[in-house]
Formats: sequence, structure tokens, C-alpha cells
Amino acid sequence: MFEFKITAQDRHARSGIFTTPYGQLRTPVFAPVGTQATVKALTPAQVSDLGASLVLANTYHLYLRPGDDLIRELGGLHRFMQWPHPLLTDSGGFQVFSLADTREVDEDGVTFKSHIDGSVHRFTPEKSIAIQENLGGDIIMAFDECADPSNPVYIKDAMERTHRWAERSLKAKSRDDQALFAIIQGGVDPDLRTDSARFIASLDTPGIAIGGLSVGETKQQMHATLDVVTPLLPEDKPRYLMGVGTPEDILNGIARGVDIFDCVLPTRLARHHAAFAPGGRLNLMNAGFARDERPVDESCDCYTCRTFTRAYLRHLIAARELLAGTLLSIHNLRALVRLVDQIRDCIEKGTFEGSLPGLLEMWAQNAGRGGGRQTIEAEK
Amino acid sequence: MFEFKITAQDRHARSGIFTTPYGQLRTPVFAPVGTQATVKALTPAQVSDLGASLVLANTYHLYLRPGDDLIRELGGLHRFMQWPHPLLTDSGGFQVFSLADTREVDEDGVTFKSHIDGSVHRFTPEKSIAIQENLGGDIIMAFDECADPSNPVYIKDAMERTHRWAERSLKAKSRDDQALFAIIQGGVDPDLRTDSARFIASLDTPGIAIGGLSVGETKQQMHATLDVVTPLLPEDKPRYLMGVGTPEDILNGIARGVDIFDCVLPTRLARHHAAFAPGGRLNLMNAGFARDERPVDESCDCYTCRTFTRAYLRHLIAARELLAGTLLSIHNLRALVRLVDQIRDCIEKGTFEGSLPGLLEMWAQNAGRGGGRQTIEAEK
Repeated sequence: MFEFKITAQDRHARSGIFTTPYGQLRTPVFAPVGTQATVKALTPAQVSDLGASLVLANTYHLYLRPGDDLIRELGGLHRFMQWPHPLLTDSGGFQVFSLADTREVDEDGVTFKSHIDGSVHRFTPEKSIAIQENLGGDIIMAFDECADPSNPVYIKDAMERTHRWAERSLKAKSRDDQALFAIIQGGVDPDLRTDSARFIASLDTPGIAIGGLSVGETKQQMHATLDVVTPLLPEDKPRYLMGVGTPEDILNGIARGVDIFDCVLPTRLARHHAAFAPGGRLNLMNAGFARDERPVDESCDCYTCRTFTRAYLRHLIAARELLAGTLLSIHNLRALVRLVDQIRDCIEKGTFEGSLPGLLEMWAQNAGRGGGRQTIEAEK
Repeated sequence: MFEFKITAQDRHARSGIFTTPYGQLRTPVFAPVGTQATVKALTPAQVSDLGASLVLANTYHLYLRPGDDLIRELGGLHRFMQWPHPLLTDSGGFQVFSLADTREVDEDGVTFKSHIDGSVHRFTPEKSIAIQENLGGDIIMAFDECADPSNPVYIKDAMERTHRWAERSLKAKSRDDQALFAIIQGGVDPDLRTDSARFIASLDTPGIAIGGLSVGETKQQMHATLDVVTPLLPEDKPRYLMGVGTPEDILNGIARGVDIFDCVLPTRLARHHAAFAPGGRLNLMNAGFARDERPVDESCDCYTCRTFTRAYLRHLIAARELLAGTLLSIHNLRALVRLVDQIRDCIEKGTFEGSLPGLLEMWAQNAGRGGGRQTIEAEK
């Protein structure tokens, strides 16, 4: 059912094809985030038209609202949200630890209060898998604990618990049309990351996720951690760097052998008037754009750039029109999808390592303040 | 440049073709409202795909933000908002009297304070036409005063001033690629409406607008007023009933010889979770829809109804997702465009008078609370 075939390698960077029940994913791939069964402000037709091939939805959110039972009853998440391509669901672990009002962890699982209404809920590895089986994504995640990287003792405990939870997640899984990825944790400690990479790599899963990055560490720490982790992973499994990232982070991740990315950044920035552009992010609220007849990015082929001026987008933002968020979301997602397509072409042609410094220079000024996944608060 | 050809008549109802520089309008026609140079929450591609052929934009709003000079500089409103079909702009009169913070009327014009920042501005007939020439719509409106219908003395004064302003608007007009319509006023007084209809009909304009309805009067008063006005109008000019309306009002207007309609209702209702449906409007926030796998309207051919369940829409609304407003706007606009298409077919076949009772019964339960144009506050 799930097969990963590497089609080209360029030093550590790889391109490949991951086969899922909903079609083949060409890797590297960037997944837009559809937290509540919708990529914010976009129709699935718009998401598909901009070239996205994989969408992530959040288990924590969909469990709370509208409920995974309801989604299963209505034919699963693909049908519910009308997304015809592969879907990935996370385990809910990250949201329980970052979004829930309160939480208490024990060996068996986590009890937490909903951020919506304060109601009390409990996730265990078995529960997370049951929810994800109800949702019916093609790629699902083992339940994990994403610990505060500033507390080394807690990081180790959380990592070891994550390993035991990964084994329980694997045992709990009953559907054979879903690929379960287990998650490497360990903060930014190279020894813990080594232990975790070795343990997770030893499990019988069709893919491996790297969690706990883009949560406040520096770029250097993220790179160093990837440099420790990826060489320990089997070549023949896709590697998913969770919640990353900026154009720069994606370039650096692919250069270190990562295959799959997701991030709220493109759509969140869009709703805050910012557009990815080569040479540096634009804030289109800026009065300097009021009479600017150029598209956001002259080199971009998205609907927004093919159709509208910066002046029009600036007007929509000033007038607080919803269309501004839609048009900038289309552009920002297309920018990342296109960047990853371009990287894949470079890898196939063997020119990625040579192109990397230029691509990094072009896209370095597009980072979010502090980067990617920790900004998930905005997606509540 | 502007030609109106009646292609069929069925008692008072007419179908026709109005030729404009941006293409032919088949009448009767319903125009979605794009107040701030955007039909709220929709791309122009979505508006065009749902079959809309005419869009209205508001002179008052665009004068204040981003400014008509700026829009002229950037090539006019068609190009600015990328709407490739005919555009209609109103005169700003209604908004000055309903939306501005304060206003003072004299014979020459109106001084008012912006609802955005309290800044002071002045509209005269000449200024309104100059703004509309900068915007560059295909159909433009004479500057008018829409008076409170509860004050008979003021109504008469305002009507007479509107007539003098109509003559000044006509004189001020300098572009020959825009069709200027003058506006009949007179509240719900049959004598005043008679005077106004005769006066406005005597002017040399390619079309006539009926203003001051759907501003709080009863349905019966609206119908009675149309019954007085439309028989006094020349057959060979298109008649535009401003700010109307509900499916029921459109049916009743067409039966009385009206050709053009516009209303914020479909998009405003959409942002408040309501969907037009044969047999009665649905409030999709209702918990009863949580597991409803049917489309909003099984007989509808819009993207929303072809693609999504009521359950999904209900989830989007509960989760406060922007996509809910987009999908319901597509449906509500398509419902009106389709209803008007259906009516036009009936007129062409000579079956409209016979179909009217059934159509009225089907659509009567879809009125907004209190109807159409007075709800413009929500569009601020």
C-alpha cells in the first residue's frame, strides 16, 4: 500500500515518490495546513489549483469540533472536506501541550482542558490512533510529547515516554490503508536526539517524523539537530520535519535529507498582510504599495500574481476585505509549493547543492518572526 | 454605444438585451454588490463562474478609500478589481444619507463626515459624476437624495431637489462610454411618485432607476409604488430598481416591468450563516444540520452545492472558518442569478405570468428580516 522510491539524490538531498491510497506524492513536498478541515480562506479547488498535493489536518481540533465520530460517519475527512489528494493528520500531542488550557501527563496519557469550552478530555496513544483512524488520513502520527526544550530532565522523560507511546501507537493501529509515522523527540540535545533517532528508526513504520523543532530553538540548533538525526535514519523511509517552515528552513531541511514539511506560516502571514517574495517578504499594508501596479512577485505564476496589482491588494487590506487573506494565501502557498518543485527539479538534475547558496540568499529574508510551528496559537 | 432591445414580453414582464462597452447584459439581471471593489469573500473568477454578468460598486466607499483618482490612475475600476463584465456605480447619494456620520443638505449638494475617520467631504451632482467618470463604470447614476419616507414635506423637497440634481448630473457628464441613469424618488406617495416618474422619464437618458424603495416600507407599499411608476416609463429604456432585493421582491419587480436589480442581501446573509433555498431560507448554524449529508439545495448547480454537505458548512460556521462565508456567498448569489435566468426563460416562452404564483410560493420564505437595501449598514 505504501511504497517510497527514491528517484534522485544530490549529496544529502533526495527526491522520491511516496505512494498512498489517494495517489502518489512527489517528494520533497510541502503540505499546507488545514487545521479545522479547511485551509483557511481557500476552497479545496483553490488549494488543488495552486499545486498542493498533501494537506495536513489537526487531530486535536477535529476531535473537539466537529468530532472524529461525526467525520467517520460522514465518510471520513477526505470526503468531508472534499480534498481528493493525500491527507496527513498529526497525533494531537503538540496541540495538547501548546494549545489546551491545562494538561496533566502520566505514563498512560494526557488529561487536558479544551481551549474552546474548558471541557475535560483525555488522549492516550490508543485514543489518538482511534481518532486518526476515524478521520481516515493517509499518513497518521504516533502520539508524542513535545516538551519544553529549556528543561533537560523533562526533555529526557518526555522523549522516553514518546518512545513507549510510539510502540503503543503501533500496536493500537488497525487500518492497513494508513501509514503510521513515529516521531523523534529529544529537544536540542545531540545525545538524546541520537537515542531517539535510533529507537524510532528501529520501529517497523513506513516513515519517520522529526518533532520538537521550530518551537523556539535557534536556526543553528535546528540545523545541528538535523545533522545529528538524519544520518541515523534508514534511506528508504520518507522523513517528515513537523511544523517547518519558512522558505529558508525548507531549503536547509531538504539539504539535510528531509522529504516532507508542513507549516501554518504561509496562510497565517497572508492573513497578516505579508507576502513571500524573492529578495524579502512584503508587507502589503505599507502605503508605498498604494499605487504599485506590479504583481506581488513578477516571477510568480499564481492566480493572485497573474491577476492583481499590489495596489489592489493594499486597498483590500486597508478596507479590511476578506479577499485580501484569500489572495495572499494563494500566493504564499504557491510560492512554497513552487520553491519545493524547483528544488525537486534541481535534485533530479543534480544541481541542488550548487543552487543552494543562491536559493538561500533569495529566500532568507522571508522568515516569520521566530519561524514556524510555535506560531500555531494564531490557528486556534 | 448603449442600446436596449426588448426580446420578449409577458404582460408587464420583459426580457431584453442591454448593450454596454463591456458586453451585452441579458435582462432581467441581478447584480451582486462589490461595495469596496470586491464582492465580499469572493474572487472575481468565482463571481464570474457563478454566472453574474453585472456587478455594482459603491461610489461613496471608493471615493473615500482608495480614492477615485487612484483608481483612474490605475486604469479604472474594471482593471483595478479585474471584473471583465459590465459594472454599475451608484451616485453615493444613498450612502451619504444612510452611512455618513453627519450630513447637511443644501441646494447645491451635501456636506458630510466620513464614517471611516470623521473627515469632512462634499458631494454635489457634478462631483458625483466626476467621481463616477474616474471610476469608469458602464452604468452610472445621477446624484439623488433618498429621504426618510416618514416625513412627507421633506420627501417632496428631496424629490424636487433630486430632479434638479438629475439635470445637473446630465449636464456634468462628459464621457460617452457610460450610460447615465436618473433616479425616481418620492417615497411611497403615489402623487409624488407620479410626478417623479414623469419628470425622470422626460430626461434624455438611456435608462431609468427607481430609488427610495426597500428602505423600510411594507411589501404592499413597494408593489403599489411600482404599479404607479412603471406604467409611466418609456418601454424602450431599461428600469433599475435600486437595492432590491429578496427573491420575492425580484419576482414581484420583474412582474411589474423592472429589468435590473442589485442587493447586498445574498452576501450579507451568507456571512450570517443563512442560505437561500426553495421552500425557505436555511440557517446552517442550526445543530440539526450537523450530520446532514445533503447539499444546501439539491436542485442547485453551484460549486458549493455540487461539492459540500450541509454538515461540512455547519462545521465551518461553528469553527468560525472564513470559508463558510465564501461558500454560502457563492450559493446565495448563484441562487438569485439562476432564479433570474429561469424567469427570463419563462418570459421568453410566455409562461412567466403562469409560473409566478408557484415561484412566489417557493421563494417567499427567503426574505431577509425587513428586506434589502436598508441593511447596508452591515456593509460598512
